[in-house]
Amino acid sequence: MPPDPRFFPSAGAFSLDQLAEISGAKGIRRQTPDRSFTDVAALDDAGESNVTFLENKAYLDQFESTRAGCCIVAPAYADRAPDGTSLLVSDGPYLAYARVAAAFHPDADRSYCPAAGDDLVHKSARIGEGTVIGAGVAVGPNAEIGKNCLIGPNAFIGDAVRIGDNCRIGPSVSVRFCLIGNNVSLFAGVRIGEPGFGFAASAAGAVTVPQVGRVLIDDHVEIGANSTIDRGSGPDTVIGAGTRIDNLVQIGHNVRIGKGCIIVAQSGVAGSTIIGNGVQMGGQVGIAGHLNIGDGARIAAQSGIMRDVAVGSVVAGSPALPAKHYFRQVAAISRLAGAKDS
Amino acid sequence: MPPDPRFFPSAGAFSLDQLAEISGAKGIRRQTPDRSFTDVAALDDAGESNVTFLENKAYLDQFESTRAGCCIVAPAYADRAPDGTSLLVSDGPYLAYARVAAAFHPDADRSYCPAAGDDLVHKSARIGEGTVIGAGVAVGPNAEIGKNCLIGPNAFIGDAVRIGDNCRIGPSVSVRFCLIGNNVSLFAGVRIGEPGFGFAASAAGAVTVPQVGRVLIDDHVEIGANSTIDRGSGPDTVIGAGTRIDNLVQIGHNVRIGKGCIIVAQSGVAGSTIIGNGVQMGGQVGIAGHLNIGDGARIAAQSGIMRDVAVGSVVAGSPALPAKHYFRQVAAISRLAGAKDS
Amino acid sequence: MPPDPRFFPSAGAFSLDQLAEISGAKGIRRQTPDRSFTDVAALDDAGESNVTFLENKAYLDQFESTRAGCCIVAPAYADRAPDGTSLLVSDGPYLAYARVAAAFHPDADRSYCPAAGDDLVHKSARIGEGTVIGAGVAVGPNAEIGKNCLIGPNAFIGDAVRIGDNCRIGPSVSVRFCLIGNNVSLFAGVRIGEPGFGFAASAAGAVTVPQVGRVLIDDHVEIGANSTIDRGSGPDTVIGAGTRIDNLVQIGHNVRIGKGCIIVAQSGVAGSTIIGNGVQMGGQVGIAGHLNIGDGARIAAQSGIMRDVAVGSVVAGSPALPAKHYFRQVAAISRLAGAKDS
Repeated sequence: MPPDPRFFPSAGAFSLDQLAEISGAKGIRRQTPDRSFTDVAALDDAGESNVTFLENKAYLDQFESTRAGCCIVAPAYADRAPDGTSLLVSDGPYLAYARVAAAFHPDADRSYCPAAGDDLVHKSARIGEGTVIGAGVAVGPNAEIGKNCLIGPNAFIGDAVRIGDNCRIGPSVSVRFCLIGNNVSLFAGVRIGEPGFGFAASAAGAVTVPQVGRVLIDDHVEIGANSTIDRGSGPDTVIGAGTRIDNLVQIGHNVRIGKGCIIVAQSGVAGSTIIGNGVQMGGQVGIAGHLNIGDGARIAAQSGIMRDVAVGSVVAGSPALPAKHYFRQVAAISRLAGAKDS
Repeated sequence: MPPDPRFFPSAGAFSLDQLAEISGAKGIRRQTPDRSFTDVAALDDAGESNVTFLENKAYLDQFESTRAGCCIVAPAYADRAPDGTSLLVSDGPYLAYARVAAAFHPDADRSYCPAAGDDLVHKSARIGEGTVIGAGVAVGPNAEIGKNCLIGPNAFIGDAVRIGDNCRIGPSVSVRFCLIGNNVSLFAGVRIGEPGFGFAASAAGAVTVPQVGRVLIDDHVEIGANSTIDRGSGPDTVIGAGTRIDNLVQIGHNVRIGKGCIIVAQSGVAGSTIIGNGVQMGGQVGIAGHLNIGDGARIAAQSGIMRDVAVGSVVAGSPALPAKHYFRQVAAISRLAGAKDS
Repeated sequence: MPPDPRFFPSAGAFSLDQLAEISGAKGIRRQTPDRSFTDVAALDDAGESNVTFLENKAYLDQFESTRAGCCIVAPAYADRAPDGTSLLVSDGPYLAYARVAAAFHPDADRSYCPAAGDDLVHKSARIGEGTVIGAGVAVGPNAEIGKNCLIGPNAFIGDAVRIGDNCRIGPSVSVRFCLIGNNVSLFAGVRIGEPGFGFAASAAGAVTVPQVGRVLIDDHVEIGANSTIDRGSGPDTVIGAGTRIDNLVQIGHNVRIGKGCIIVAQSGVAGSTIIGNGVQMGGQVGIAGHLNIGDGARIAAQSGIMRDVAVGSVVAGSPALPAKHYFRQVAAISRLAGAKDS
């Protein structure tokens, strides 16, 4: 799917030649000469009017079966493209994609910013019965807030955000590019939907990759004070029903967290990692990006996760190991160094 | 003591039979048939009109000497109850307690939420001479703020909060369910009094345990930007006089920190841990719950504390060891792996 | 240089005798009897009308060549002072300095605090063409904001802050004591310019050292949600052009970060550390204070840096080692403890 147009309307369409110029591509393979392209999308759900890219060879399978109308790709992989896909060949596909995405979304991070005297709650916003919008709260155009919610003073609800019924949004919380279910609590200072840490290297420094995915928060989720949940880069960031996140937790872009998980304070999950259902993470855990954490896994406090974690396993340490093995290592090191006589 | 009624008025009283039904208890031991119960309280300071619970067998001593009128307890420990205490027997005492506490406190997290046009500073709030309440600040009913304070723009001061003289509250800070002494500084974005990470497991997922304790902050405390101090679950969270807490620190519910402690940035202390006087913690330290950290202990940066720390000791590592032993281990591992020739 | 008078006007001047009394010094070496002193400054850039101090013997070289009119110093080092520098001799130079600095700057942390009805944007503030100041935003006296900026609702811009053109300041951000270049983004909840964690020990507890340095943020910097960048203690905290800082990162006072660095979420850098250009830090890294991190260094996630890191090196672990050596250690420990059979 291309970006949700409620949040990220496209500034396209562009022709293949225009995209070649924008991207700085060094070659074109033209399969469908007259097509124009309306937006970007991820490899695995792009359609014929979308532009996508292949950077990480772990996704070669998705590339070979993509239905994208256009894909930006390195020369080495060009001959593995499906027949219907036009190619923009580039030595730096991610940087080229950043430029293309910026053409479709030249200001993807902009939100409603009422000045003094403007309507704090935009007139196109819909507010449900029994809901209290606190003083100083700004609500953007086309936002929808359900019934019996409390939106704490000085919170910010961005354009087109949807919040279900019986939700609590604490003071000074900000929510952007986000769809929220029912009975969700976001405690004071939570930041939902800020852009993920996404940029491509270039000779002139980091180039921002427009972050055009959303945050989807299911029913009965609670998120602790001052935690931060970045929006997706194109795919969405997802928090499953009943999951509870403690204070000062960081969730990166495109992370998908299952149902009924428990994430203790100051933990962080890097981009695109997938966490199953019922996973429990102790405090100050770090999980690297692009990993899979199986259902029911339990991760001890301060662990550093650098590899996939199997369903139901219990891990500890940094880099993390099965907990039994970790504690055996702790004991072995203790013997190696002699008695604790200090 | 039951919850402070200024913050957590009880919706009770309930009879033992009502409580049995609310809790889902499978058995009753009825010692005082006609008594009604007015609120919950902790094992060690519950009185005859309070309901308490025993979940963690580490507290069996407190159970055997409790003066609670009613205690929720697992079958295995029922015969160790004192004579005057009625029992609700349950296979899941903490879940049963969560239900009972929710009956007494059906909305323990609600705070003042003035809408546009309402009084930002509630008319029952008392503000001392020389104090400046910044623009956009909401102050709840019955709050009291002393003399010569500055409350920064867009801060939130919840219902019945007390703040002493000469305090500085930064922009966008939120303070709820909290009593603050004199000469205290809370820097921008601090979150005081959000609910701790408290819930009981059930077949249908996590059930919130109403957090009905306060935060008590003594004189001359300073708390750094965007740090979070959760309120107690029933007991209070306490920060002793002169303690200095850096930025992005997490203090869990029921933690008690002594006087003159120094806690460097990004450290976290899990629930119910007790920290003595003059303790120093480096950055990014994690301390597990229910521990005792002795007076004057020093904890190196990034340590992970899983056991009690003795008075005056110096520890390092994760899991932490006496610092001398830790550095001996570091050296032993280095020898084991050979020279640093990379 | 003494503190920037736009942010920290001096309450001086003081004579040497007054300073001796204020500081509690036990001795005076009087070189220039009639001079009065107008402000504090750091050892290496104090002038003849400034007071400085020597606490850490690592800075003895700077002491021996200082051009300060007055220096507070321990007896052991007094005879190494340059001829033109008057001395205040103290057994606790840092505590004595704290008292002197507080005399020059009795309220260094105070910012604009408009009350309800006051001008939210102070009339002496200058706002550039095309800039939108969101509702609820307070802007202090003499602040300057450039063209085409968006300042999100309920943000706080302190006295004399300068912000360049095309900047984005998110909702509820606070910026104090800071100069910001062009094309800078500060995402929601960022805290710039809060006081560093600076205090001197005394018999009566910690004594605040007034933090009288600024934060300098160069062009094209981005700082993630709820991150905190403390202002300098006297020297400035500096973030170089094009550097990108993720969410929930802590940067201590006097830290200098070069150009084009990448700092992933939940990392922390302690005071006075200098980071070169193009340095990359993974998530949850901790760097101790007063270190040098060379250009192009790469630091793995969760590393703990206790020593300088050489230009271009790659390090991992806590305490950190060259990455190759670290992974060899991980393997050696694994062999030592036997197979992972759990």
